[in-house]
Amino acid sequence: MKRYERFADEIAELIRSGVLKGGERIPSVRHASRTYGVSPSTVFQAYYLLEDRGLIQARARSGYFVREHAKRPLNEPDISARAGETTEVGVSELVFSVLASLRDPQTVPFGSAFPSPGLFPLPRLARSMAHAVRDMPAGAVIAEMTAGNPDLRRQIALRYMVSGVMLPLEELVITNGAMEALNLCLQAVTEPGDLVAIEAPAFYATLQVLERLKLKAVEIPVHPREGIDLDVLADSLRRLPIKACWFMSSLQNPLGASMGEAKKDALYALIEQHQVPLIEDDVYAELYFTREPPKPVKSRDRQGLVMHCGSFSKSLAPGYRVGWVAAGRFAEQVSRLKLMTTISPSVPAQAAIADYLQHGGYDRHLRKLRHTLEMQQGAMLASAARHFPASTRVTRPGGGYFLWFEFPEPVDSLQLLHLALAQGISLAPGPIFSATQRFRNCARLNHGHAWDQRSENAMALLGRMIKSF
Amino acid sequence: MKRYERFADEIAELIRSGVLKGGERIPSVRHASRTYGVSPSTVFQAYYLLEDRGLIQARARSGYFVREHAKRPLNEPDISARAGETTEVGVSELVFSVLASLRDPQTVPFGSAFPSPGLFPLPRLARSMAHAVRDMPAGAVIAEMTAGNPDLRRQIALRYMVSGVMLPLEELVITNGAMEALNLCLQAVTEPGDLVAIEAPAFYATLQVLERLKLKAVEIPVHPREGIDLDVLADSLRRLPIKACWFMSSLQNPLGASMGEAKKDALYALIEQHQVPLIEDDVYAELYFTREPPKPVKSRDRQGLVMHCGSFSKSLAPGYRVGWVAAGRFAEQVSRLKLMTTISPSVPAQAAIADYLQHGGYDRHLRKLRHTLEMQQGAMLASAARHFPASTRVTRPGGGYFLWFEFPEPVDSLQLLHLALAQGISLAPGPIFSATQRFRNCARLNHGHAWDQRSENAMALLGRMIKSF
Repeated sequence: MKRYERFADEIAELIRSGVLKGGERIPSVRHASRTYGVSPSTVFQAYYLLEDRGLIQARARSGYFVREHAKRPLNEPDISARAGETTEVGVSELVFSVLASLRDPQTVPFGSAFPSPGLFPLPRLARSMAHAVRDMPAGAVIAEMTAGNPDLRRQIALRYMVSGVMLPLEELVITNGAMEALNLCLQAVTEPGDLVAIEAPAFYATLQVLERLKLKAVEIPVHPREGIDLDVLADSLRRLPIKACWFMSSLQNPLGASMGEAKKDALYALIEQHQVPLIEDDVYAELYFTREPPKPVKSRDRQGLVMHCGSFSKSLAPGYRVGWVAAGRFAEQVSRLKLMTTISPSVPAQAAIADYLQHGGYDRHLRKLRHTLEMQQGAMLASAARHFPASTRVTRPGGGYFLWFEFPEPVDSLQLLHLALAQGISLAPGPIFSATQRFRNCARLNHGHAWDQRSENAMALLGRMIKSF
Repeated sequence: MKRYERFADEIAELIRSGVLKGGERIPSVRHASRTYGVSPSTVFQAYYLLEDRGLIQARARSGYFVREHAKRPLNEPDISARAGETTEVGVSELVFSVLASLRDPQTVPFGSAFPSPGLFPLPRLARSMAHAVRDMPAGAVIAEMTAGNPDLRRQIALRYMVSGVMLPLEELVITNGAMEALNLCLQAVTEPGDLVAIEAPAFYATLQVLERLKLKAVEIPVHPREGIDLDVLADSLRRLPIKACWFMSSLQNPLGASMGEAKKDALYALIEQHQVPLIEDDVYAELYFTREPPKPVKSRDRQGLVMHCGSFSKSLAPGYRVGWVAAGRFAEQVSRLKLMTTISPSVPAQAAIADYLQHGGYDRHLRKLRHTLEMQQGAMLASAARHFPASTRVTRPGGGYFLWFEFPEPVDSLQLLHLALAQGISLAPGPIFSATQRFRNCARLNHGHAWDQRSENAMALLGRMIKSF
């Protein structure tokens, strides 16, 4: 990373954390150059970059200012309330009926789980795929079903190494996306009837998988910025025979919360103390806007207790269905479960991604992707501030492509979805994220698609619907 | 199909069924032309084809003779004995340890579950893949995860139609190979502790899946040519609360048995009478050597009780991991289970196969593949007759690439595997095919690889080991 990029990131961090507020003037080039001991041209380049990222704007003869939408115009939601002790999960039917209603490609896709496919380097990946299948030795189609593509395994381990996790290759199991990895991990460490600690709100598939495997949920409240409430978790681990924890420590879906490094230390200490395995769902790992990539809890894992699940579906290759788990001491069990259920992810898809990781410019693509998502987050936040009631609360995650809105009390998000769909707008209503079907007045909105007049109009329409409750 | 091909198939059928025996002279061209009312040139072309298929050979000035290896030199095994009522399955550990020992690519792969990758049109498929990913609209990578590739779905339904099954498209769920389809079907209709009727011997993964899902097996004896014993099945269905049947009605693994059409009618009548769903594993459907393709039980399915599982892994594209199930009345349940576990098979792999099915010449490839496998079956049978003790029994399936050997009583196939591996030869020992670990003196041998001097030597070595018991 170049000096000016680092400097730009430092300024961005000040804006993000609220030290520099929307509308505020930032130091002049001369002033910044003197104060921070960098050359004026470095400051210039950094400011151009920040302008390009949509965080600051130049005003004629007045210098640079923090853009209005970069401030936090709506308040943040509170931490979710603690629910009952344990919950039988029975939300699958609701989730399926909601998801089915979101599938119409004509709607404004605020309810979608995916960012725009246009954000991914699909033509470059197609070239990697063409190379990979052309050059593949015939034996590979069979051999790599059990062993996985060796280049892909190496590339994944390398990315772990760069991010500070020394991963023995044997821990790595390549799976059909992270969804399969999560399923297999949970099956490896639980029996029907067991208790599993999950987040509230949680990714709806978490709830469906628990329901399918007849597991009971212990819901842990999540702070919209700092992640799960460790006191509640500690208390639950002490009192209940919890067999596994399933958390997203960074860019949690739907809140976007990322636990700080100290908190991750404390979480690891807790699971180590109780010897309860942690399934760490980290599928948004590459989509951070912060200066430093968040480090997974897995980086603390001395005892092989953490099963760290990742995927290329959100950052590179949706639809290729290639994910993985670094499964610690459970790697062999997980690998065997995989052989008994799907045998292997598609061998050509593995080879294509391996080729892309070696030659395609993944990091360059990721920088651009993060930049775009950050811009679009700013646009949706600004639009929400314009159109939604002032008492609306909203998260402001340090990455990803989801915002979580808490609307005024009377709003029923399932009804809101119904109204919105009639106007060609989708959204993900709060109750599908909860084993206890809470978060009635909340919704997750996706800003992973290009922001345009249609998006703006949709926000205005949603705003009117919300006010009508 | 041309007239001479049809005529060749009729002769082949006579050889297969034993009407024409090894060494016997077949009718002269003039005689055949007169008797069957076809032109001499048709007979000539048919005989050339049969010679090419390794079924007959010309002798100078004497005409054509059935080749020696086309006769049945070793006897057929008896139908397997009936086991106890129900069995807890606990064979997975043995299966995994045996399978791990078979993975060395240097061994003669008689123990392999796959035919030679060289038998598949991988370069042509690679071209289909390159086209498919290049031309894929960006939105497809996301849309086709839930819906599946529409061209692939149509092509599969078309193949059903051609084989006489009118399949509503909604019944079709595209899966990560047949293995996932079988898993999902079983989960859709059972709860832990339930009874499932399976074959004895059965494909070992069947046993592993039952064990994983905590289901109990009701083993039904299988006749090596005619398939399961329907009387035992009828009796079991009457007396036991069986929740599902899981059978291979054609080219059963490991025996290669194919039920006749009347028997399939009777099987369907039974499951309809008891309203017990049938999971029909039909992954070898395309590998028949017989004149007519076997028709699945699914073709009788008036009530949506049959879940017919198929795959491209054994006939076209190993490692692509694309299979399907025509799931009858259980289609929506199966589809939802899939969304909760792996979401979707790889979208590019689906598109590549769809392209190949439209433009690649699948039927031409299949004719060549069947021909090669049939030749290699003949070679292995002849070799076994030369090298194995005369009291050895062996199946002679009408398709596929497995032979099932029953060795003299003292032979222990697990020990035999041990000895064979030390000599660089693998085989699949009998006990991994049984919930009750029977078939100790049996083994499955794979003839899906080119037959050469090394194969011949391996058979000779195996023969000596068998005699040493």
